[in-house]
Amino acid sequence: MIIQIQKGATDIEVLHISEAVQSIGYTYNDIKTQFGRYLICIGKKEIDLRKIGFLPGVADVFKVSDAYKLTSTKWKVGKTAVDLGDGIRIGNGEFQIMAGPCSIESEEQIISTIEHLKANGIKIMRGGVYKPRSSPYSFRGLGMDGLKLWYKLAKENNIKIITEVMQVSQIAEMHDYVDIFQVGARNSQNFNLLDELGRVDKPILLKRGMSGTIEELLQSAEYVFSNGNEKIILCERGIRTYETAYRNTMDINAITILKDKSHLPVVADPSHGVGVRKYVDKIALASIMAGADGVIMEVHECPQKAFSDGQQTLDYGQSENLIKKMGKARELIA
Amino acid sequence: MIIQIQKGATDIEVLHISEAVQSIGYTYNDIKTQFGRYLICIGKKEIDLRKIGFLPGVADVFKVSDAYKLTSTKWKVGKTAVDLGDGIRIGNGEFQIMAGPCSIESEEQIISTIEHLKANGIKIMRGGVYKPRSSPYSFRGLGMDGLKLWYKLAKENNIKIITEVMQVSQIAEMHDYVDIFQVGARNSQNFNLLDELGRVDKPILLKRGMSGTIEELLQSAEYVFSNGNEKIILCERGIRTYETAYRNTMDINAITILKDKSHLPVVADPSHGVGVRKYVDKIALASIMAGADGVIMEVHECPQKAFSDGQQTLDYGQSENLIKKMGKARELIA
Amino acid sequence: MIIQIQKGATDIEVLHISEAVQSIGYTYNDIKTQFGRYLICIGKKEIDLRKIGFLPGVADVFKVSDAYKLTSTKWKVGKTAVDLGDGIRIGNGEFQIMAGPCSIESEEQIISTIEHLKANGIKIMRGGVYKPRSSPYSFRGLGMDGLKLWYKLAKENNIKIITEVMQVSQIAEMHDYVDIFQVGARNSQNFNLLDELGRVDKPILLKRGMSGTIEELLQSAEYVFSNGNEKIILCERGIRTYETAYRNTMDINAITILKDKSHLPVVADPSHGVGVRKYVDKIALASIMAGADGVIMEVHECPQKAFSDGQQTLDYGQSENLIKKMGKARELIA
Amino acid sequence: MIIQIQKGATDIEVLHISEAVQSIGYTYNDIKTQFGRYLICIGKKEIDLRKIGFLPGVADVFKVSDAYKLTSTKWKVGKTAVDLGDGIRIGNGEFQIMAGPCSIESEEQIISTIEHLKANGIKIMRGGVYKPRSSPYSFRGLGMDGLKLWYKLAKENNIKIITEVMQVSQIAEMHDYVDIFQVGARNSQNFNLLDELGRVDKPILLKRGMSGTIEELLQSAEYVFSNGNEKIILCERGIRTYETAYRNTMDINAITILKDKSHLPVVADPSHGVGVRKYVDKIALASIMAGADGVIMEVHECPQKAFSDGQQTLDYGQSENLIKKMGKARELIA
Repeated sequence: MIIQIQKGATDIEVLHISEAVQSIGYTYNDIKTQFGRYLICIGKKEIDLRKIGFLPGVADVFKVSDAYKLTSTKWKVGKTAVDLGDGIRIGNGEFQIMAGPCSIESEEQIISTIEHLKANGIKIMRGGVYKPRSSPYSFRGLGMDGLKLWYKLAKENNIKIITEVMQVSQIAEMHDYVDIFQVGARNSQNFNLLDELGRVDKPILLKRGMSGTIEELLQSAEYVFSNGNEKIILCERGIRTYETAYRNTMDINAITILKDKSHLPVVADPSHGVGVRKYVDKIALASIMAGADGVIMEVHECPQKAFSDGQQTLDYGQSENLIKKMGKARELIA
Repeated sequence: MIIQIQKGATDIEVLHISEAVQSIGYTYNDIKTQFGRYLICIGKKEIDLRKIGFLPGVADVFKVSDAYKLTSTKWKVGKTAVDLGDGIRIGNGEFQIMAGPCSIESEEQIISTIEHLKANGIKIMRGGVYKPRSSPYSFRGLGMDGLKLWYKLAKENNIKIITEVMQVSQIAEMHDYVDIFQVGARNSQNFNLLDELGRVDKPILLKRGMSGTIEELLQSAEYVFSNGNEKIILCERGIRTYETAYRNTMDINAITILKDKSHLPVVADPSHGVGVRKYVDKIALASIMAGADGVIMEVHECPQKAFSDGQQTLDYGQSENLIKKMGKARELIA
Repeated sequence: MIIQIQKGATDIEVLHISEAVQSIGYTYNDIKTQFGRYLICIGKKEIDLRKIGFLPGVADVFKVSDAYKLTSTKWKVGKTAVDLGDGIRIGNGEFQIMAGPCSIESEEQIISTIEHLKANGIKIMRGGVYKPRSSPYSFRGLGMDGLKLWYKLAKENNIKIITEVMQVSQIAEMHDYVDIFQVGARNSQNFNLLDELGRVDKPILLKRGMSGTIEELLQSAEYVFSNGNEKIILCERGIRTYETAYRNTMDINAITILKDKSHLPVVADPSHGVGVRKYVDKIALASIMAGADGVIMEVHECPQKAFSDGQQTLDYGQSENLIKKMGKARELIA
Repeated sequence: MIIQIQKGATDIEVLHISEAVQSIGYTYNDIKTQFGRYLICIGKKEIDLRKIGFLPGVADVFKVSDAYKLTSTKWKVGKTAVDLGDGIRIGNGEFQIMAGPCSIESEEQIISTIEHLKANGIKIMRGGVYKPRSSPYSFRGLGMDGLKLWYKLAKENNIKIITEVMQVSQIAEMHDYVDIFQVGARNSQNFNLLDELGRVDKPILLKRGMSGTIEELLQSAEYVFSNGNEKIILCERGIRTYETAYRNTMDINAITILKDKSHLPVVADPSHGVGVRKYVDKIALASIMAGADGVIMEVHECPQKAFSDGQQTLDYGQSENLIKKMGKARELIA
């Protein structure tokens, strides 16, 4: 059960509500986010929602049987648009493309990418400065130096930054230079990281785990939400299956289902999803048909020279082409 | 290596070609189909194709490193359109919808379905008369009686029939009443059945196995082709993964890859692919974006009353709606 | 619900029982096997088993909620031993090793294998004469000629034969030369083949599908049983997962669970299960600890020269070693 | 390539070695652990190991083509025994059982568990004080208070403690109260955590990820090793597959393969591996046959009353029984 508290409800009122909840054998979590206050109540008895609904301070009450609660459409039927700043929004009908290299490499590379984005009307640049790598001997990114340089160039050009945060201690140092914090597939159930990102007032893009279920992704989002941050973007990036003809099995089904089960915006990552350059465009378009609110993709001036390219990065020509096609696909959907 | 034999080449010429092949340590299979003759040559030595190419009777020679040969784009770059009769074709730019119930149930049901198809410009009706069922105690279909009734009604209305064949002995009895033989996921590697279907001059729709790889599907198609039947349609119908939020993981990626690796037409089965009624439309549209040449889907006047409905069958209203959207999506692709 | 009919019950009695079943809204299947007669009754209403139990001709009544019925421990608590002839039995405490090459190749090979088996006290020889192959261009086995030769040599040496049957039409021709019919992973849901094998009075070894569930394997066994043949041996042979460090994921868990859910004997196939020669012994021993009633394994005088060896075939020395270790492991279990 | 540096080699000698490495176009990582010093050299050119081998300060040189290096048997053929303190060792022939509850709950529970362990000769107690939970609303463990209480009771009884660490900041606070740090499946690729655990001189038990490959597990171990800590224990705990008859697919194959590919000890977790109480014993025994150096299992005085029991916890009677059987299985292996 979710009890939505009225704006302006007093602490005494909330105390009375919580006592009523406990009196029927339920436990509760008192959740305060940047946009509201909720009591998440957990128990097994069948209860009459109206008895709670009439208490002073209650805005609304919802029965939510899902394992996730605040991220469910069971209480919030309308879609959430996440505000990325400067009037850029994603979700609830607003679509965004996020493009850029796998890793931030140099000033020249950043400038070149920004020019490509601006020429194609893209407002958000992706890129890694902390890279999760299977092997400890691989390049792990330029770190804060790279991020600060990128930030300076991006701000001058009104480009938003999305980049991956890998651990709690990086949140504070990265905070002022990042517009969207990305949580990677390998950290999809790093619950301490999710807790802390719930205490930040910046949007979080949360990738599905390598073999994460749709329910687990929504529960991970619930960690962020229940710690206070409602600005969450979900991301499908391919799952592990037995098939080896491509890198991952981009789960287009998941996009459709996430959009049905949750009010949060959903972004597709076709670059990692299928992981093969020449298939990225078709998978991106399919994702839009499935309901994606955005696409995040890898672009590099010269993919063959990129610091890290798992064969999935588009060159500028391919990117431009795909951006145009995505525009048309969006019109079809509308 | 594939040696394409010239139309009109003499048996003596082919004998000389095959001797040349053996002389370089290769084995060969002499393949005659309704459209041509090919020698599939298997060996390990690096050879000079030109030496073979200049022999009398050789139309062309191709090096094909794929495990599948005749179904590969390595020798046939252009796309194949399969002729379904009466000018109806699928592939190479021509798109077909196949719709109908899971099981053929009654005369009323067949008539009602045909009306729905005609009202929406659909020319091919799907339906099962032999049903593969996990449990021996389940309804296994009306068999030949159902098929004959269906045939009569379909012919009167210029509707083509696609239905599943489960074993070799059914091929002869079904032959005159079927326009497309469907091979189900569970028979995807029933090699004896595939052999026999290679000896039939009717189109074969071949479904990917439950956990079949893309390569295995193409090799299964190779069985049909190498026994003489080039009229093959591939079908993606969802694979088994760890995710339980839907019935199968419709592998949209596979559609894109099959279209790249093979010249054969590819059909999407979103009904079984995602297996949840309310998600079928989005998955169908995504399949089209991924490059599908057709969609096969379950439709029933009243899905709740259908003999077998795994929660994936559309009612007529949903079907009509989706057919219109697919039309628009096709325009976008073109 | 399973109603076990008394030996010697009259048809009139069974008629009355079946009427009683129908009168409570249940459908039934009348199953006659080589060992007994059963009514499998399917319906949804809660019923009082005693009312049925008191009818003349009823030996016993069982509620079986599993999707499979006659193969379930819900009605038959004791374990089944399958009689392989000449006093050789498998299951219910009796353990058998089945060993031999992937493919039957020649008289020399058969003789050599039989000598190896006899020297190690093994009574059952495996080998393929009809081989399911992914590619139509691969060697497909020696067929009936190979089987007849093998039969002659095996009979002279009191060795039993287990070999794969791939289609219905092969059953009759193979029948007199085979002691156990093997159904391969790719035919695990070839329901027509299973139906027909239910009409044969020879043991059937049924392999789990490539991505078959434990429940599906038991339902496939139910096909054989419900058509009249109770002599069924289940076989775990590895499943498809994302891991590529070995060929298949031998699912040791499945052995334990099959032994718990079904009264039928369970055999492990470590050769295909893990698919890597040097790991076969450990996986075989683990299978025994998990409860396997037998092991089927590939052995060849010289695996490197075998017609088909997917890197999993043991040589005679390795085989002898493993057979000794399995003997000790069996003692530990006992 | 791994260059093992001689004990007592001077920094000047190592400098010269590293220069020689760079001169042939290789990059290197200078690794110092509690037991030795190594240069991990990465490059593509074929080189003559002897030229490096003769340099002063070089103990030995190894070509290691695996993605993991220091954890590979390619350079260390003998097995590693990890010292857990007070003469308790695991690996290289020494076997350990680790048993205890899912979560530490209370003083009574700790005392009861310790008594059970001592009565059965078990020296290591498992238990969670920080619990990774899919839902933010679940019990997350007693934290440091629970750990300190547990530590006091364990030390008094000469019982070692293994417990999960979830984030970098917990390492320092837990350090003095823990004998083995456990990294859970969800943190298997939390590279920052692995880096930091490489700087600790306590053994690390590293669980395979939910859908982690064998290679990824070894690469994660490489993170710990290459940061300075050689005391690593690998743990197989079941993977995600399509099968739903049990909780996870305990991958017994992985135990055998890890033992072949790496010199590190390997522990089996049958409790989470198969995840069903009544199957835990058979899977534990199978793991020993596959080569496991230890077993970690959940035990509780009354599993039904445990704070968290996913149906996999044994009661004391079941545990005692299994411990005896494991003893016998170990004798068989020896």
